[in-house]
Formats: sequence, C-alpha cells, structure tokens
Amino acid sequence: MAKKRQKKRTQNYKKHLGQVPGALVYTGAKDNKQLQLHAFDYNEHDYKEADLSSVEEAFRFKDSETVTWFNLNGLNFINQIEKIGQHYNLHPLILEDIVNTSQRPKIDEYKDYFFIVLKMMYYDESEKIVSEQVSMVMGKNYVLTFQEAEGDVFNGLRERIRHKKGRIRDEGSDYLLYALIDAIVDHYYAIIETMGNKIEDLEDDLFTGLTQEEISQQIQNLKREILKIRRAIFPLREIINRLEKSEGPLIEEKTTHYFRDVYDHIIQVTENIDIYREMIWSLMDMYMTTISNKMNEVMKVLTIMATIFIPLTFIAGVYGMNFKNMPELENPDGYYIVWIVMIAIFIGMVVYFKRKKWL
Amino acid sequence: MAKKRQKKRTQNYKKHLGQVPGALVYTGAKDNKQLQLHAFDYNEHDYKEADLSSVEEAFRFKDSETVTWFNLNGLNFINQIEKIGQHYNLHPLILEDIVNTSQRPKIDEYKDYFFIVLKMMYYDESEKIVSEQVSMVMGKNYVLTFQEAEGDVFNGLRERIRHKKGRIRDEGSDYLLYALIDAIVDHYYAIIETMGNKIEDLEDDLFTGLTQEEISQQIQNLKREILKIRRAIFPLREIINRLEKSEGPLIEEKTTHYFRDVYDHIIQVTENIDIYREMIWSLMDMYMTTISNKMNEVMKVLTIMATIFIPLTFIAGVYGMNFKNMPELENPDGYYIVWIVMIAIFIGMVVYFKRKKWL
Amino acid sequence: MAKKRQKKRTQNYKKHLGQVPGALVYTGAKDNKQLQLHAFDYNEHDYKEADLSSVEEAFRFKDSETVTWFNLNGLNFINQIEKIGQHYNLHPLILEDIVNTSQRPKIDEYKDYFFIVLKMMYYDESEKIVSEQVSMVMGKNYVLTFQEAEGDVFNGLRERIRHKKGRIRDEGSDYLLYALIDAIVDHYYAIIETMGNKIEDLEDDLFTGLTQEEISQQIQNLKREILKIRRAIFPLREIINRLEKSEGPLIEEKTTHYFRDVYDHIIQVTENIDIYREMIWSLMDMYMTTISNKMNEVMKVLTIMATIFIPLTFIAGVYGMNFKNMPELENPDGYYIVWIVMIAIFIGMVVYFKRKKWL
Amino acid sequence: MAKKRQKKRTQNYKKHLGQVPGALVYTGAKDNKQLQLHAFDYNEHDYKEADLSSVEEAFRFKDSETVTWFNLNGLNFINQIEKIGQHYNLHPLILEDIVNTSQRPKIDEYKDYFFIVLKMMYYDESEKIVSEQVSMVMGKNYVLTFQEAEGDVFNGLRERIRHKKGRIRDEGSDYLLYALIDAIVDHYYAIIETMGNKIEDLEDDLFTGLTQEEISQQIQNLKREILKIRRAIFPLREIINRLEKSEGPLIEEKTTHYFRDVYDHIIQVTENIDIYREMIWSLMDMYMTTISNKMNEVMKVLTIMATIFIPLTFIAGVYGMNFKNMPELENPDGYYIVWIVMIAIFIGMVVYFKRKKWL
Amino acid sequence: MAKKRQKKRTQNYKKHLGQVPGALVYTGAKDNKQLQLHAFDYNEHDYKEADLSSVEEAFRFKDSETVTWFNLNGLNFINQIEKIGQHYNLHPLILEDIVNTSQRPKIDEYKDYFFIVLKMMYYDESEKIVSEQVSMVMGKNYVLTFQEAEGDVFNGLRERIRHKKGRIRDEGSDYLLYALIDAIVDHYYAIIETMGNKIEDLEDDLFTGLTQEEISQQIQNLKREILKIRRAIFPLREIINRLEKSEGPLIEEKTTHYFRDVYDHIIQVTENIDIYREMIWSLMDMYMTTISNKMNEVMKVLTIMATIFIPLTFIAGVYGMNFKNMPELENPDGYYIVWIVMIAIFIGMVVYFKRKKWL
Repeated sequence: MAKKRQKKRTQNYKKHLGQVPGALVYTGAKDNKQLQLHAFDYNEHDYKEADLSSVEEAFRFKDSETVTWFNLNGLNFINQIEKIGQHYNLHPLILEDIVNTSQRPKIDEYKDYFFIVLKMMYYDESEKIVSEQVSMVMGKNYVLTFQEAEGDVFNGLRERIRHKKGRIRDEGSDYLLYALIDAIVDHYYAIIETMGNKIEDLEDDLFTGLTQEEISQQIQNLKREILKIRRAIFPLREIINRLEKSEGPLIEEKTTHYFRDVYDHIIQVTENIDIYREMIWSLMDMYMTTISNKMNEVMKVLTIMATIFIPLTFIAGVYGMNFKNMPELENPDGYYIVWIVMIAIFIGMVVYFKRKKWL
Repeated sequence: MAKKRQKKRTQNYKKHLGQVPGALVYTGAKDNKQLQLHAFDYNEHDYKEADLSSVEEAFRFKDSETVTWFNLNGLNFINQIEKIGQHYNLHPLILEDIVNTSQRPKIDEYKDYFFIVLKMMYYDESEKIVSEQVSMVMGKNYVLTFQEAEGDVFNGLRERIRHKKGRIRDEGSDYLLYALIDAIVDHYYAIIETMGNKIEDLEDDLFTGLTQEEISQQIQNLKREILKIRRAIFPLREIINRLEKSEGPLIEEKTTHYFRDVYDHIIQVTENIDIYREMIWSLMDMYMTTISNKMNEVMKVLTIMATIFIPLTFIAGVYGMNFKNMPELENPDGYYIVWIVMIAIFIGMVVYFKRKKWL
Repeated sequence: MAKKRQKKRTQNYKKHLGQVPGALVYTGAKDNKQLQLHAFDYNEHDYKEADLSSVEEAFRFKDSETVTWFNLNGLNFINQIEKIGQHYNLHPLILEDIVNTSQRPKIDEYKDYFFIVLKMMYYDESEKIVSEQVSMVMGKNYVLTFQEAEGDVFNGLRERIRHKKGRIRDEGSDYLLYALIDAIVDHYYAIIETMGNKIEDLEDDLFTGLTQEEISQQIQNLKREILKIRRAIFPLREIINRLEKSEGPLIEEKTTHYFRDVYDHIIQVTENIDIYREMIWSLMDMYMTTISNKMNEVMKVLTIMATIFIPLTFIAGVYGMNFKNMPELENPDGYYIVWIVMIAIFIGMVVYFKRKKWL
Repeated sequence: MAKKRQKKRTQNYKKHLGQVPGALVYTGAKDNKQLQLHAFDYNEHDYKEADLSSVEEAFRFKDSETVTWFNLNGLNFINQIEKIGQHYNLHPLILEDIVNTSQRPKIDEYKDYFFIVLKMMYYDESEKIVSEQVSMVMGKNYVLTFQEAEGDVFNGLRERIRHKKGRIRDEGSDYLLYALIDAIVDHYYAIIETMGNKIEDLEDDLFTGLTQEEISQQIQNLKREILKIRRAIFPLREIINRLEKSEGPLIEEKTTHYFRDVYDHIIQVTENIDIYREMIWSLMDMYMTTISNKMNEVMKVLTIMATIFIPLTFIAGVYGMNFKNMPELENPDGYYIVWIVMIAIFIGMVVYFKRKKWL
Repeated sequence: MAKKRQKKRTQNYKKHLGQVPGALVYTGAKDNKQLQLHAFDYNEHDYKEADLSSVEEAFRFKDSETVTWFNLNGLNFINQIEKIGQHYNLHPLILEDIVNTSQRPKIDEYKDYFFIVLKMMYYDESEKIVSEQVSMVMGKNYVLTFQEAEGDVFNGLRERIRHKKGRIRDEGSDYLLYALIDAIVDHYYAIIETMGNKIEDLEDDLFTGLTQEEISQQIQNLKREILKIRRAIFPLREIINRLEKSEGPLIEEKTTHYFRDVYDHIIQVTENIDIYREMIWSLMDMYMTTISNKMNEVMKVLTIMATIFIPLTFIAGVYGMNFKNMPELENPDGYYIVWIVMIAIFIGMVVYFKRKKWL
C-alpha cells in the first residue's frame, strides 16, 4: 500500500515536471465519466436553477444583474474548463491551478476577480483522510466553483437558496463566496472530531488492548494525518484574512463581519489541531513510559524469583557434595536443620522485598 | 467517561454543522429551568436594581443617561435573547455567538458597541476544570452580560455598585466593562493556584506514593488541563490589547490605564501557565528517570545475588559429581577446605561490589 | 517546605481576589517594624541627605530645582505610601502596584512621570533565590524608590552622590533613574554567576558524588530557579527599550546612550540565562545517559558471570547424576578430563567476551 | 569517505580565507575541460541560436532589442568570466560570487540588473544529493546564466523557445528569468519525492529488514540530507518574494503573477521538507520504541524460563543432598510424588504468566 | 579546570559589580608587557606606516585627508586608551566597553563615529576555543582598532595596503572598516570547519573508539562550544545590517554592497552553526540508541545462554536425586537416553532462537 501511494505521487510530479507553464494537465486520480454542470441564478425575488449539458449554456447567465453560481464537477474535462476560462477572461495560471490538484490552499487577487483554492477533507469508509481540491473564482455577480467529484457539501447551501432561508438571496456574490467557504470550514469540524475520538480511543488502548507494534503504527499514522490536515487548513487563515482586509469593490463592507466569523472558526479548528498534535506527541511519551514500566515489572519478577532461590539452591548443592568427611550429613537432624535454615532465608528474602515494595 | 465526553462533543458539532448562518442554537449542556434577568441602573448619585421577569422590562433602562448593566442567566431561552438583540440592534452573528458556547474568546468591534466573549473557569467539586462562556456587549451607557448559569463571580462587583465602593459609580460603561473583565481575570488566579498545587503534590508523589499507572495518568490529565486553560486565557491578551488601543468614543482615555492593568494580570497568568506547562513536561522527564533508576536498582540486586552465588553453586556442583576417582573427596579436610574457598570467593565478591559502589 | 510555599502563595492570591481595584493591600511577607525613609537632594554644587521620620518631611524637597531621590523601605506602611501618592499626584493603580509584590516587572508611562517595577534578586544564605520588588517613580527633578526591606544594593550609588564620583551629580533625574536600574542589573551578574557555578558543580557530581535521587532533585530545582529568574529579568528588555525610545521631555537625549548600555547588559544576562537553561536540559540528557550506561555495566557483569558458569554448572550436574551405568564415572582419569573440559570452556568464554570488548 | 569530504571542504575554505575581496577563485570541484557557451537571441518573430567558441562572439547580441540568453558552463574559465563581467559592467563582487560555489542562494539588486544565485539539486547514481550552483544576471533584454557543468535542466525551456511553445517568445527577459527559475524549482519536486520514498522505505525496514546499526546510520543520513536541502531551498522564498515585490522597471507588472506562482511552488516544496523533517524525527522515536519493545521481549523469555525452572531445580537439589536421615528418600513413591509436585509448580507458573499476558 | 574557569569568571564579574559607570577597568586575562601601537596613513598615491612608542605620536595623523588606521594591542594600558579617548573625543561608555572584554558584540552609533565590538575566535593548541575582543571606532578618515593581544588576523590586510592590492587604497575609511570586519569574519570559517571535523570524528567514534564516559563528555563539550560561538557570532548579523542600512555620511553608498557581501558570509556561518547544533543533538540521540542497542545485545547473550542451559541443568538435577526407588537410574541405557533428551532440547532451543533472529 505504501508502494501504491508513492507510485501515485511520483506520477503526479512527473506530469508536472518539465511541462510548459500554462499547459493544462489534470493531476488528480478521479476520472469522472460525465461532466456535471450546475447553475444557479438568483436575486431576492426569484431564482433559476439548471443542470447543463455544456458550458456554453452557462454563458447566458453571465451578464445578468442577478447573482450566478456556476458549479463544475470533473476536472478531467479540460476543454470545457478552457472554454470557461476564455469566456470569463481568466488568467492562464488560474486554469492551470484548477486542474492541478496538488495545489496548496491559496488566494490570488486579480483585477476583476478573486481566485481561491481550498481543500475539502473527509474520512472515507476505511478511515483514511481524503482531501479534494475545490477552486473558486469570485467576480462581480458570479461565483464559479470547480470540484473533482460530486460531493454533498454544498447541498445545504442550495436548499437555502431555493427556499430563501437566511439572508443569502438578499446578498451579492461576496456573501455567496462566504457561504461556500463556510460550508467547507464547517466540515473541518467533523475531521477534528473524528481525530479527537481516534486519539481518545488510542489512549484507552495504551494500557490494555493492542500489541505494541499496532500502537506504534497507529501513533505514526495519527502524526501523519495531523500533518496532512495542518497543511490543508493552516493556509486558510491567511486566505480569509486577506478577503476580510480586501479593499477592492468586490467584497462589501457588511460582508467582512461574516468573513471575520469564518476566520474565528478557522482559528478554533487550527487550535484544536495543534492541541491534538501535542496530545499525540504526549501519547508517544506515555507509551514509552508504559513500555519501561512493563519491563520494570518483568525484571522484578525475575529478580525476586532468582534472588530467593539462588541461595537455597546453593545450600542444597553444598549438602549434595560427596566428601567422605561431612559431619552435618551424619547428624540425624541435619536434614531438618537445613530445611529450617532454608525456610528462614526464604522468609527473610520475602520480608526484604516487601519492604522494598517490590511485592 | 471518555466515551461520554466524546459523545457530548459530537452532538455539539452536529448541531453546528450545516446550520444556516445566523440561526440561533444553544450548544451548551446547561438547561436552566428559569430565566434569570437582573438589571442595574446607576450614576454617581443613585442606583436602581431589579430582578426582572421578562426582557421587555429591561428596555425602559435603555435610553437613560445612567449606566445600565443588564445580566441574563440561561442561554437556552433563545427567544428572549433574540428580543434583546432586536431591541439593542445587535448583529445576527452576535446572537449566534452568544448561544454557541464552543466559542473561542474574542472581541468584535461594531460601530456602536463592542462584543466580547470570555470564558469563566473554575474547578468543580470533582477537581475537574469547568469552563463557562460569558458574553458581553458594551455600548454607550450600557453593558449586557450573558451567562450560561448563575455564578457568584460578579457578586463582589454588585456590592461595590450598591455601596459605592471604589470609583465604579463615578465612571461610565467602559469602567463597568473593565470591572467585569477584571472580576473574571481575578478568578483565573484561583485556577493557576490549584494547578500549581496539583503539580507540587504530584512532584512529591513521584518518589513515594502512587502506582506508576496513576502517575502516568495524572501527568496526562495535567497536560490536558493546561492545554484547556491556555486555550481559554491566551486570546484574552489580544482582546484587552484591542480594548486598550481602541480609538473610538466608547473607551475613555482615563480607562485605558485600567485595561493596561488587567493586561498585566493576564500576562502574569499566562506566564504562570507557561511555567506550569514546562514543569509538567519536566515532571515527565523526572518520572522517566525515576523508572530507570528503579530498574537499575532491581538489576543490581539480581546481579549481586547471582554473581555471588553462581560460582559457589558451581563449586558445590563439582564436588557433587560421582566420579570414582576424586582425590579431594577422600581428603578428611576437603570439606572444610572447600568451605574456606567458598567463603573467600564470597568475601572477594562483596569487596568487589563495595568498590563498584553497588552495595 | 513545598507545603509552606504553596500556602504563602495561596494567601497572596486570596488577598488579591475580589478586592476593589485601587485598594492598597501589601501582599509581601516582610513586615518591617519601622518605616525607613531616606532622602537625597543634590545638584552639581551641593547635596543634602536625611533620614526622615515621616513622609511629610520629604515634601519640602519636591519643588526645588535640585534632583531629589526619596527612598522608602517597608511596604507594609500603607498610610505613608498613600500620603506620598497624594502629594506626588500618583495614579491609584500605581499605589496598588507598589504594595502588591507579586507584580511582573513593567513600565507604565504617565503624563508627568514614569512608573517602573523591577525585581531585586539574590541568593540567601540557604542558597535559595529571593526576589524583592523595587518600584520607582521618576518625574521631573525627582525619583521615588520603594523597597520591601533595607538592602545594600544602592549603597554604592549613595557614595557616588556624596563624593561626586562619576557624573551623577552633574546630571538630572533621568541619569539617577539610569544609575538605580544599573545598580540592580549589576546584581543580576552575581545571580547568573552563582547559577553557573551550581551547574558546573552538578555536572561534576553527575559521574561521582550524589545519589540519583539527589541529582534528579537538584536538576529539577535548577530548572525552577531558571524559570524564576527568566520571569524576573526578561521583561526588563522591553522596559529599558521603552525608556531609551521614550520621546517625552523626561529622558534627555544624552542619557539614552546610558540606557542603551544597560540594555546591552540585560541582553548579556538574558543570553546567559538561556545558555544555562539549555545546559540544564542537556544535563538531564547526560544524566539519563549515565543511568543507562550504569545499567549497561551492571547487565554486563551479570551476563559474563552467568554465561561463564551456567555451562560449567551444567557439566557438574551431569556427572552428579546417579545412573547405574555411566562409563565416564568409572574412568580413573574422568574427573581430570572433566576439569580440563571445564577450564577450556572457561577460557573460551573469556576470550569471547574480550573480543566483544565486554571485559 | 567522511575524511574525504572534510578534506575537500577544508580546501575550499582555505582558498577563501585571506584572499583579497574581489579576487576570482573557483572553489568548486568540477574542472571542465572545455568551456561551453550557448547563446539564444529571440523575439516573437524570430530566434537565433549559437554554440560559441569565445565570449567575445556573444557580445554582438548585447545591444539588440531582442531578448538574449547567454549560458556559460564551466566556472573554472575565470578569464572568460572576467571578460563577460567587463562587457556587461558587472560589479566585482558578482564575479567573485559566480565562481565561489559555496554561496548561499541570494538575490542582489543592482541599478541595472538583478544578480541571483540558486542551487540545482539532484540525487546522483549513488543516491547522494548533489548541489550545483547556478548564477543568473538579468538586465534589460538579456539574461546571463553560469553553471558549473552541463546539465539538462534547461533543455525543455530551449525547446519552448525554438518551437515557440507557451508565451516565452512573446515576453521579455523578466519572463525568461521566471522560466529559468521555474525550471530549477520544478526539479526540486524530484528531490522531495525521492526523499519521501526513502523515508517510507526506511519506515518499512524499521520492523523487519536492516540491522540496528544500519537503521541508525540511515536515519542520521536522512537528517543530514534534509538539512542540506533546507539550506539550499529556504532562501528561495525571500528571493522570489523580492523579485515579485520589485518596483524597478526590470520586472513588468504582468510577470509578477508568474513569480507568485513560483513562490507558491517554493512554499509547497518547503512545507514538504518540513513535514519530512518531522517524520524523520518521528522515525527516530519509533525506532527507540522498537528497540525497547525488543528488549522487553528478550527479558520476558529469560524471565519465564528462569522463573519456571529455578524452583524446580531447587527441589531437585534438595533431594540430591546426601544426609543420612532423609525419610522422603526411603519412601518408594517419593520420586513420583516429587515429579507431581514439580509438574504442579510448572503448570502454576505457566498459568500465572498466561494471566499476565506474557505468554 | 572547571574550578579555574569559574574563578576567573567570578573575578571578572566582581570587577564589574558596583563600579562607577564610566570607570575604566580591564577585565581580560592578558597582561601585555608592552603596548604595541601601529599606525597606517594612506591614500591612493602614497602610504606611511609606523610602529609608535606612545599614543601622542599618532595624533599628528588625525587631521590629514588621508585614511588613518591606528591599531593598539594591550588593553591593560588604560592610561593610553584614555588619552586616545580624549583626543578623538570618544564617549566615556566607549572607553569602558573597550577594556571590558566580556562585552557582547554590538554596534553603537554616535554622531561622528561608529563604535563596534567584535569577537575574534580561534582554537588554541589544546583545541579549546579562545575568544578575543576587538573594538573598532570608525570616523571620517580614520579607523581605530583595539585588540587584547597581537594576532595575525590583519596581516593580510596590511599587505594589501602596502602593495596596493585590491581597491583598499582607492577607498575611504568605510571600506577599511569593511576590510577589517571581513578579515575577522573570514576567520570564523576556520572555526566552523574545525567544529565540523570534530563532529564528524565523534560520529565515527560513536560506534567504535571511545569509552562511554568520554563520548558523553565530548558531546557536552561540543554543545558548550557551539553555544559560545553562537553567542559571539549571531549579534554580527544585526551589526552588519545596521552598517549597511546606515544613512549617515560615514558609509558611502558604494560600500554598502561590500557590507551586503559580509552579511551573506555571516548568514552562511550562522546557518552552519545551527546545522552543527542540530547535528550534535542528533548525535546525542544516536548515542542513546547505541547504548540501548548494546544493552539489547548483552541481554540476548544472557537470555540465550540461560534459556538453553536452565532446563538441561534441571534434568541433570533430577537424576542427581537420591531416591531409593528411581527406575530410570537402573535402566542400563538411562544415561544415554538422558543425553539424547538433553541434546534434543539444546537443538530445539537453538532453532527457536534462530527463528527469532536472536542468533
């Protein structure tokens, strides 16, 4: 499995290496069979919604005064993405970044729009962390979102648009951007919750359940997951901060409070991550202590047994010698006296170990 | 118990996940049966105090020139909180944050008021750290405080208002805000004091009292408590700093010295926390050393006993052999000579170990 | 003793907790029986010096053009301190800070004066670190100093004023402030020197002298002392820096070079503290290594003895068996042959261990 | 081999020590036999390419409006480099830095050009990291590159110029500089990928393959490689940042987006390096745990064997004694009774160890 | 030796403690018997050089337009230094710092000159690090240097002045200052090179050569040396930075490029120091692992020997019992059967350990 992962990574890098800047190459693993295009167009009075079969259909929404949200699933349909790029006049580097799924989360400010790359994260069925790239372009009156595959993260938001829940229908594209980011950040709570449970479970297992190799492996896995999550979530702080501080006309004054709120959530998530990180390192220490304690106990058992019986065995050995002239052997009570001596030594030793609190 | 905690947390997150931004959901655990509302209205000459039965009663204080302090206990009475929000014209995000008790301490500056979230912390009877959220809204002439449950933290302050102790009655709402924060920060000293005592007790127990598993568990608990306290207290530095540096009309020049004073207290508390943190890590090291020392001692006992008796037992074994022709056995003094040899070896070994300082 | 310290600390916090801000409560442990008041009044031509019996006597110096240095020993005389506060128009928080000896070193800038809190540190006779609070108020033409008890730290400075040594008599109150701080900082060198000696002594003892529990205890004590010293000295960097950078009329341009010089000393002291800190942690590591080495040696002795004699004892055991038919036993040279075999095994083992460098 | 490396380094330092600033001394190890000079001259319409035999031939390109890229392989040809320096009016320190291959990556801004030093890094056949210095001078209309030896890192770029792939032919020398740096940064991905594979391989080997000394050595090697890579790559962040933020006329506005893109790549690479660094330290911990676990297992085997047989051997010893009067020996069933007792002890011990989970 | 060092240090501090600021006390250990004064006076056309017998002779160079470099060896000649101070109008604190050799490297900017304190570092014959203070005063047209004792670090520079090598004769006193600092920084390379060799040697010795106590001692020494070097070199970064950024008339624009170059060298040296620092800590870890590995091996030998022979010895013990009725003993083949059983057990054990990879 380790082999598999490393091969996959190699492949991605290879794709990237030596390629012309500006060339579009999808570096992800998901080859969607069909392109999914979904468009929303709404204002406070009305909304339109459509599943489209080609990107050209979406362009009619562009110049309307209403807010347009255009979502694309399937980054392997490079041609379609290029068409969108041309239509919305996107910089070539943006298109390159959309399809290169090994991007770090970031924000790029262009004259007419923001480009934002985020990471969706969730645990799959086999309890492994999966990270999917979501790219967003937000301009006046429109937001474009690009996902690797269909997920349900934005479904709640869609319902809110359809049924005019909350204030989303009353606001512009900046509030839509906020709502999209908020939906992704909300899902990070599930990640850190699962991570917290994993740590607590492992903590319980330290003293009881698993073999030492399993524990060692699990601690290592947790460390690696934490590193992966950190890398996906930490850059968000700067992204949100720059959106909040942005002075252009794209983000309205009243929306910055909402971005401030997301920022607080991000800080909370990253603080939790750092706490878990520290707890995992602490687990490692506890585990080392547990091992040392166990070894200590093993040593005590050995020492007690050996220390009690070694002198007794010596005494028995002495009277097993075959010397002609050994007066004790002739003594009719000799055998009983030896037993008394040996029992006395035994008791003495036990008392000694009791005092040392080894027993 | 670990299971219980994790379930509770899961629940809270679930409540949050996918909810419409702006919707009020109380995420705490305390379901107060009755709403407690308490209002103060004072200036240098006079004061009024009342336990109210509904929030509407409080609104008559609003427009007076006097300073109004309105305290609400019971965050599960969402309707009442919404009414206050409407009356005082609070931003929807503020109401959401008041009832969401998993907030990180923070300050939000709005045009007409400050919104501040703090954490009350105390050890309950079972010596566990409890953290309760206190939210404050401070505007011109009024301060609103929202608590999860009735506590006695502000009682001293109430007495000072009633009996005109100190300068509180002579000052405005900014000084009241200072006094409220100061009351909470003062309680942090009790926390760090208890934490300090716990560490010192554990330090004494390292060499004597508890079993190794208990010590290991207690160190882990202390680490977790420190992390929890840090998370609740560290953001306060920035909060107070921003209040002190605030340039709007809400905080008067002369009050900034008082905020500076609280700031110094916070720094003192956080420094103590960091010192305790370092001491706990250091305890872990000492504990590891203690274990190693104990193992060393066990090993020495085993080694001394084994090393002394192994050659003696060998000698006894030799003369227990049944060879026909063993001249020593025929020697009438043979037995005594062997004893002398064995005693000599014994003494030699003891001297050797004395020199090595193992005895 | 640990108990005693923790009780004292509890007491101090209790005193503080719930007290009206602005109320004066002395939180130190030293109850001076008599108030000591000492005043200096000097310019380049002349100086007056007096031991006063009440603070009122000091007030006549206030309005003179000459530089006045007024020193008070005994923070438990709260009334007197309050009188000074009224006379010099000091902010209530300053008076509170003067008598609250658990202050962190700090500087507060007021309109007409600076308020500075420092920590005098020295090792007492029982080699424990003692920290005493020294507060200073520096205004135009005067410096007030408040000490817990009479110390000799400023005696050198007094001599210099009396005998016009150096430039102190030619300069204003800002130079006097510098000279006072410099005197305190100079004493920190004695602290770090003692600390350095302690570390070197302990380093020597690691391999020879003390029992393992004593070493463990001493390392822990050193760590705690370092933490205490750091806490007292580190804030000074910011204090001096702000004095140097101060732009008001209180600090003259030409004096900033002197503050820069003190600043360099502070940096030197803090660097030494950090180095000692690192050395103590390093000591801990060395100590762990020493323990492991000792255990290794113990194990080797046991292993060598056991490994050599176990096969020999087995051989002796074999020929101690009582089988009827054991041809070797009948052989008249059997006993000698067995001896030869056993000696050969012995030599073989010794050679083996020599090669492994265990002997 | 360690000796060899240290000698080489010594030599380089010696060369540098005491030399006149401004004197050109090549400090690398590669003595190219022949100087390789390669020139490109292009605009959007046309391009010229030439392998030159002397630097003078290159000078004719200088004053053209077209973009000139002049590449030199072989830093030991000091004379030629000096000629270029004179022709392009380079500061003496630049020439010194070009041939001193122990430079740290850096950027120096001069009035008419940028001077940039980078490190090419790759693993050679024996899996050792090789670092080669590449210096670049970028002025209006020209870029000069200086390499230690011929590599293939810029071949892709040359193809793009020849066949007008991408936008390189449409842009100026700033884009060429970007493309050169991008080519080098792209190669860092191969480094971190190999590093990642090495760590994963070692992780697998921890529990199975290698001897402990080999593992210890490999961990040490990985640590050193990480340190080396960090040192070569981390300064790049500042270099790119300064190029992006540069306000002179050399870097056009539109090119800054491309530098921003390279910056993101650098951040990604450095983040990976830090993650690997943490993973290596974590490996060390795991390895220590593995050793402790193994020792624990060894101790258990010894303890079980010794503890079971020591009492049995003692019993056998007792009945091997030669006392005249030992009634058990006369008992015809004595021998069988002793066997029963010994088997009972044996079973009791095994049950005891099963319960302790040692078996 | 540790005693000696600590006494020396104590002495230095004592000298400093309680001294009047501004009083000149030489705190170094070197009492030069004779004052060495050396003066250079040069411009691009000519140079004068003289060994002077008194500082007064030097003053005639002062007001010339030519660059004057005046070097003094022997800080114990306090009178002479005071005369220079008066003549060049140096601030009293500068004179104090020149003779106080426990200074931290620093730069002080005065109106007419810079004052710089640096540390010369080298390994003496007994491989101990020696640090000597070099102070410099650079004003318009002159540089004064003060050394503890005659060294050869500036000899190369003197040659360059005499023979007009490089550009030194063409430049002003700022370039001379650069050249002096550059000469000192160049010598740091020798330090880090020796340090690097020491680390590599120790690394080789870990697995072979030295006793464990020696290794432990050497690691500790290396740590201390690194700390000492860091303390001497790290402040240089800020010093050079401030020279480079200095805006006064003393440093010409064109010289800043040279200071930038020295700055790069300093960064390179400090990076190497940090790498060595990390390598030493890593060595400590490796050493701990080595110890654990060795203990593991010792334990294995013991366990194998004991585990193989303990059951065999038990069997021999059984047939050494003296029961009347032991049928096996009467069996004429009993002895041989027992041997077969014992050999079978032996082989079984060996196979078992082979499978566990302990053999």
